[in-house]
Amino acid sequence: MASALEWRGNHIRVIDQRELPYRETYLDLYTPYQLAEAIKSMAIRGAPLLGVASAYGILLGVIQTENDNREEFFKALFTTAEMIKRTRPTAVNVENAINLVLEVAVRFNKEPIAKIKEEMHAVVEKIRKENIEMCNAIARNGLYLIKNGIRVLTICNTGRMATGAIGTALGILFLAHEEGIKFSVLVCETRPLLQGARITAWELQKEGIRSTLITDNMAAYAMKKNMVDLVLVGADRIAANGDTANKIGTYNLALLAREHKIPFYVVAPTTTFDFTIPTGDEIPIEERDPDEVRFMMGKLVSPKDFPVWNPAFDITPAKYITGIITDKGIIEPPTRLKIKEIIQK
Amino acid sequence: MASALEWRGNHIRVIDQRELPYRETYLDLYTPYQLAEAIKSMAIRGAPLLGVASAYGILLGVIQTENDNREEFFKALFTTAEMIKRTRPTAVNVENAINLVLEVAVRFNKEPIAKIKEEMHAVVEKIRKENIEMCNAIARNGLYLIKNGIRVLTICNTGRMATGAIGTALGILFLAHEEGIKFSVLVCETRPLLQGARITAWELQKEGIRSTLITDNMAAYAMKKNMVDLVLVGADRIAANGDTANKIGTYNLALLAREHKIPFYVVAPTTTFDFTIPTGDEIPIEERDPDEVRFMMGKLVSPKDFPVWNPAFDITPAKYITGIITDKGIIEPPTRLKIKEIIQK
Repeated sequence: MASALEWRGNHIRVIDQRELPYRETYLDLYTPYQLAEAIKSMAIRGAPLLGVASAYGILLGVIQTENDNREEFFKALFTTAEMIKRTRPTAVNVENAINLVLEVAVRFNKEPIAKIKEEMHAVVEKIRKENIEMCNAIARNGLYLIKNGIRVLTICNTGRMATGAIGTALGILFLAHEEGIKFSVLVCETRPLLQGARITAWELQKEGIRSTLITDNMAAYAMKKNMVDLVLVGADRIAANGDTANKIGTYNLALLAREHKIPFYVVAPTTTFDFTIPTGDEIPIEERDPDEVRFMMGKLVSPKDFPVWNPAFDITPAKYITGIITDKGIIEPPTRLKIKEIIQK
Repeated sequence: MASALEWRGNHIRVIDQRELPYRETYLDLYTPYQLAEAIKSMAIRGAPLLGVASAYGILLGVIQTENDNREEFFKALFTTAEMIKRTRPTAVNVENAINLVLEVAVRFNKEPIAKIKEEMHAVVEKIRKENIEMCNAIARNGLYLIKNGIRVLTICNTGRMATGAIGTALGILFLAHEEGIKFSVLVCETRPLLQGARITAWELQKEGIRSTLITDNMAAYAMKKNMVDLVLVGADRIAANGDTANKIGTYNLALLAREHKIPFYVVAPTTTFDFTIPTGDEIPIEERDPDEVRFMMGKLVSPKDFPVWNPAFDITPAKYITGIITDKGIIEPPTRLKIKEIIQK
């Protein structure tokens, strides 16, 4: 299978996710600016993958400089960090990963610049490895949810393309499939950019997992017709009280699940938690270009210039979430106290 | 504005709604078969308009025959009626309108065939006129809901293109706008065929009504952010107990409205009620071609041949409906008794 992100010595190679599932094409990104553009245009996406990609982005900004001026080195470093942080404001993984790399640079600031770069590279590789391990741990922790015959509903993409690892919500399903458990998946297409129809469907098909695609507005009726036993979604940022920002449409599914008495789990690495933010009300929600709604596959579907509201995420209050599956354990129910207990242990 | 349906002496001219809003092109339909194909392909759509179109369709089947054999005349008539009834099973207006025309034919069955045709033509024109009058009455009855500053959310298309008249849910808005009331509309794009983005947005723009387009999965978040004061939807069939079949996604909106304490009204002519059906469970739900979901604007968006579930409608239980606005009055709450009282008065 195509690799979502690969470090190639002096640049990053990513699969261009805008082209999936039609074509598997790759982008070679040599500069932080190229990376930022790839993130903004959603050529790469998925909160955990964005964390890893951002860390490499900082690295791209320094490895090619021959600059021996310490002051200029740090100035360039922080400018690059700000530029990448600004690409997409909702996924906290971006700033978390960048801050880890900056901390290392600052910690070694008295060392020769070559040594600082080396230490930065080491922490970036550590972030990448930990991301893989966290996803593996999540999959093991969530496996108990997938019983034979279960019908799982999901939204957006939380698989290999979202993480560069086994995945979060989809990672649980991939592991269950490997373990020989028989289940099926209902995939919400996930308007406007169709990450469900394009990327999740493609990943599930490659694994040979029985799946069916629906439009987002069919989820309620599917639940009413008793076609769904479990909802699994990812997360872009989780506040200290458990309120969760995730792909637009997630809050809708949470309400529907509660109404139909279906368990609703958020699946995310512990790096998705933001303890600086007390509740979901304070999570910044990115609003994207209206043309993402007005155009489909390059063709205008609405009247020209028709006003559009295009929030990329919504907030699901913790009270609608049955539990949060993390690499450190299961937080159920996701209260402030329980979150602290599990994450900070 | 383009006319949704026009009788032209020996054929029907309809605007091809699949082409809206890109092009205003017309189809000239000379035979019941051509009409049936136009209905199946959704070149014409909207429950009230389908009722009128089906009545004309029966007429098309007889006006051109020179057949003087009474037995053959009636045989052809009933065959045509069955063919048109089968085009789309959910909208009851189709069978209701056809049955009215058939009843007249049977009532005058002893008369010369020319006379039967004449009487059939008369009843078809009556159906068309009554449809216009019912929509006008609905708009007057629902007008009280539209107060200055109100933000209305709607799904699919319930305007001139759905009725060949002022509309049902949108008809209320058009009248309110004429009356100088200031309000705004949030339009759900309505996947898979985008009647909201394509047709409702186009109608609202033509009238100069302030509107914003969203994808269907944004409705919940819009409600949570207090952007919606009222939900208005149409109906394809209403059971004796008030359970309502309407465009897929309607049930979802009803649940969301209840959760956010927002009034949710169904708007429909009395011809949409089906007293032969006790509850929504017995309403037939049309499932359409998977390619409507897999393809967008002629381009494949999901993996090839990926399994799809594509119900065109869902059922909203009466208990989630604040009221039903009809030409004969407002049914609030929509109980079996109250429905009988208003509709059969």
